[in-house]
Amino acid sequence: MIEIDLNSDVGEGFGNYTIGNDEEVMKYITTANVACGFHAGDPCVMRKTVGLAKANGVVVGAHPGFPDLMGFGRRAMRISDDDAWSYIIYQVGALKAFVEVAGLTLHHVKPHGALYSVLTTDEQLSRVVADAILKIDPGLPVYFPAPLSQAFPRIAKEMGLRVVGEVNADTDYTPDGAVVVQRAKHALDPEVARKKVRKFIAEGTVTAINGKDIRMEAESICIHGDTPNAIDVVKAVRDELKKAKVAIAPFKRSSSPAKPKSKS
Amino acid sequence: MIEIDLNSDVGEGFGNYTIGNDEEVMKYITTANVACGFHAGDPCVMRKTVGLAKANGVVVGAHPGFPDLMGFGRRAMRISDDDAWSYIIYQVGALKAFVEVAGLTLHHVKPHGALYSVLTTDEQLSRVVADAILKIDPGLPVYFPAPLSQAFPRIAKEMGLRVVGEVNADTDYTPDGAVVVQRAKHALDPEVARKKVRKFIAEGTVTAINGKDIRMEAESICIHGDTPNAIDVVKAVRDELKKAKVAIAPFKRSSSPAKPKSKS
Amino acid sequence: MIEIDLNSDVGEGFGNYTIGNDEEVMKYITTANVACGFHAGDPCVMRKTVGLAKANGVVVGAHPGFPDLMGFGRRAMRISDDDAWSYIIYQVGALKAFVEVAGLTLHHVKPHGALYSVLTTDEQLSRVVADAILKIDPGLPVYFPAPLSQAFPRIAKEMGLRVVGEVNADTDYTPDGAVVVQRAKHALDPEVARKKVRKFIAEGTVTAINGKDIRMEAESICIHGDTPNAIDVVKAVRDELKKAKVAIAPFKRSSSPAKPKSKS
Amino acid sequence: MIEIDLNSDVGEGFGNYTIGNDEEVMKYITTANVACGFHAGDPCVMRKTVGLAKANGVVVGAHPGFPDLMGFGRRAMRISDDDAWSYIIYQVGALKAFVEVAGLTLHHVKPHGALYSVLTTDEQLSRVVADAILKIDPGLPVYFPAPLSQAFPRIAKEMGLRVVGEVNADTDYTPDGAVVVQRAKHALDPEVARKKVRKFIAEGTVTAINGKDIRMEAESICIHGDTPNAIDVVKAVRDELKKAKVAIAPFKRSSSPAKPKSKS
Repeated sequence: MIEIDLNSDVGEGFGNYTIGNDEEVMKYITTANVACGFHAGDPCVMRKTVGLAKANGVVVGAHPGFPDLMGFGRRAMRISDDDAWSYIIYQVGALKAFVEVAGLTLHHVKPHGALYSVLTTDEQLSRVVADAILKIDPGLPVYFPAPLSQAFPRIAKEMGLRVVGEVNADTDYTPDGAVVVQRAKHALDPEVARKKVRKFIAEGTVTAINGKDIRMEAESICIHGDTPNAIDVVKAVRDELKKAKVAIAPFKRSSSPAKPKSKS
Repeated sequence: MIEIDLNSDVGEGFGNYTIGNDEEVMKYITTANVACGFHAGDPCVMRKTVGLAKANGVVVGAHPGFPDLMGFGRRAMRISDDDAWSYIIYQVGALKAFVEVAGLTLHHVKPHGALYSVLTTDEQLSRVVADAILKIDPGLPVYFPAPLSQAFPRIAKEMGLRVVGEVNADTDYTPDGAVVVQRAKHALDPEVARKKVRKFIAEGTVTAINGKDIRMEAESICIHGDTPNAIDVVKAVRDELKKAKVAIAPFKRSSSPAKPKSKS
Repeated sequence: MIEIDLNSDVGEGFGNYTIGNDEEVMKYITTANVACGFHAGDPCVMRKTVGLAKANGVVVGAHPGFPDLMGFGRRAMRISDDDAWSYIIYQVGALKAFVEVAGLTLHHVKPHGALYSVLTTDEQLSRVVADAILKIDPGLPVYFPAPLSQAFPRIAKEMGLRVVGEVNADTDYTPDGAVVVQRAKHALDPEVARKKVRKFIAEGTVTAINGKDIRMEAESICIHGDTPNAIDVVKAVRDELKKAKVAIAPFKRSSSPAKPKSKS
Repeated sequence: MIEIDLNSDVGEGFGNYTIGNDEEVMKYITTANVACGFHAGDPCVMRKTVGLAKANGVVVGAHPGFPDLMGFGRRAMRISDDDAWSYIIYQVGALKAFVEVAGLTLHHVKPHGALYSVLTTDEQLSRVVADAILKIDPGLPVYFPAPLSQAFPRIAKEMGLRVVGEVNADTDYTPDGAVVVQRAKHALDPEVARKKVRKFIAEGTVTAINGKDIRMEAESICIHGDTPNAIDVVKAVRDELKKAKVAIAPFKRSSSPAKPKSKS
């Protein structure tokens, strides 16, 4: 039986502010990407989120982003190599401490928002970010939206990192396979997510905004926790996976990638 | 021959801003307390500072503070227990990552500014902060200004942490032995620091602002890097220690405390 | 017929974060206290909030607080006189620009959260804050929770500012008449608010947490927009005022204070 | 006798951090561009800087930038139209309050760092920024580096704003006439500044980094306060202007532009 990982961006509150319903989302996912205090999250939120993940048997990864709380890390910033390297060490290091203090092991790293967008094409910054992750722990997998031919996953793999492709169940894709990043999320028809997942499991592809099919080498499905109806979306995704007889389990470092069925 | 540790607060720049002359200060100290991005410091500054420490054979500790860059962590804030615990994990964790990536080991933790001031008397917050440090690494010594009868050093010791008392060569003390924290530092006559050190080595005491002598159980002497003439001050301190035949070496976890000579 | 002003703290979102339902709250109040970017609010939120107020015929005041987004301005900070004065000018000035660009006039100033708490007793800071408001516009009324014998309203009045007392329909009071400030708000039974308002209109008093009655010289009733069910609360308050035949209208500089009926 | 305005970016400190020597710089300039708390500056610094300007008879303009203290506003950020408009109102409004409380009138607005860079080519953002300034006060001149054929000065002029061209005495220019923005400034040979000014006064041009001459419609010369030896640079510039018999005076709204001598 094939397996697939189900990840979500959580811990995106700040102070008195909350985004998403982490308590609920945690019940349905295998893998949490936790904000690290730059684009979202603060130390109290990180502590609480790691505790929630532990209580739900969810593995925890770091979700670093640009230092831009006002823009939720969804605005591109022209940062230097030194900035990028240091921002990764800082954010991943801070989250790693919460994870280890909770008796867990940091599971992975996944770039957030506009940092992700920049890394789809910027080879120099991709090298810098991959180097920082390697320096922290060369065994840390990096999660990145497929297609994995984009700059960061390609370079990270070349530099020795294990890359876990993911497909979003709740965002659009450009014809180039880039995720359409929204600064604020809107509710999504769970049927749209269900259809995306069905097609991905059956054919290993998603349909871009221009109708073109794009091949997705994905071992994980991503649900965004700040979608207003994220719980409905994740339930629909789980149901669809069950129907397709795909087991839901966190990515294991030693496991071989999930191979979505292909029509051919 | 007795030994003493010589520590300084460094890495207090932020972005384009610099405070102190870390490149120079590092040549004269054994032990660096590195700001962690809350009251001062940013990821690039932390990376650079840890690199400087490594190049100079200086051991590196974390110098966490209140989340108040505008006030340089020198304004008391009424934070909750959850805040305090989480702020320590976050800041120490972030710095620990830079230290470990540089191939070093985190040496100690020392509370900064108004956090220090609050911890001199607040027993509840002292317990919380000590617990956070223990959770990260129970072998991490905590540096704290003598006298060690103040709340934090007393409680940290009770809870199992090794406490390293320090005496400031460049600040005033109240009759209760509390450091007079200035929001912005002014230049200091190096002779004043020299005299303080001479008295401490000879008698194990400092003179408070009211003229009273206070006993100081200190194994380290602290020099503040943001004193405008910090280099002159640290040179005077080193010279005075040399005259007193006290060796300057970083605190070692296994070593027995430096025992200042006593007149009696 | 007597009149009373109905004010609420709004514009407390930040970036992608929202607190309260300003669109709805604005339909029921006369007077908006808009966060100015320090403890909450950002420029986009301020623009939008002032626009909402204008569309609803609601008058706009500035709601300055401590520079502590992570603590939502609800943690006391020991700031200097210079800090306090400058923070008021900055925040009120920024909001005033949005108000004037929208073709409106800044209506009042009301201190937020822990700044309010500090001003209930700190006479020196009260003088400084009052001076800053006077310098911006000596005709700006200041809203402050009754009882008006507390430090800030007393001193502000002495210094020439018009003080508008307010009574909270949705918070508890200590026996000294101080508002019990919560860092995060919980839902409130609208009947509790209704009862508070009824008693205040009938007797000019509220009941403190120890059961004691406290006299309240209030010309405005405050509803907190971040109470989860703020809309239900404000509807109950309006209904209760209607029953008591009290007209709901924004405070007018020239008007005489609303005089709650007294049993005697 | 022709006149020229001499402006400098000042008030760029933050909390305990200082950049530049404003006390000295103020003695030599006619016009201050004061940071507004986003890329640099804080309320206390703004108060102090406006006071210094007043004491030196220097006119005060607002120097708004991106919300990026860590990058000193020198990193491009992809902000929305709403962001840009609101950031201008907020920052200019805050500074305007300090200026008016000091009994002065806001003199102008000048975009800072990467915001300036983006505005050299981004027509949509230029319209938005110009609109915000017009809304605050249609009589506010905008300072912008020549050549004035760049997007912002061209569009601002079309929309009715008075544009004051400036030439930097202390930065390099690309062949397109764009200022080479450095994230951190280095010391500059005052002779280089002197030569730039001499050429500009004589010919109305500067030499780009490729040796090409670029025509500069400038009524003001800019000196950057964060150049380590800014005082030496400004003294050299003043001396050179004196030699060329050009009077140094702040730009007056009604005055006709300074017309540098032309060889032809």
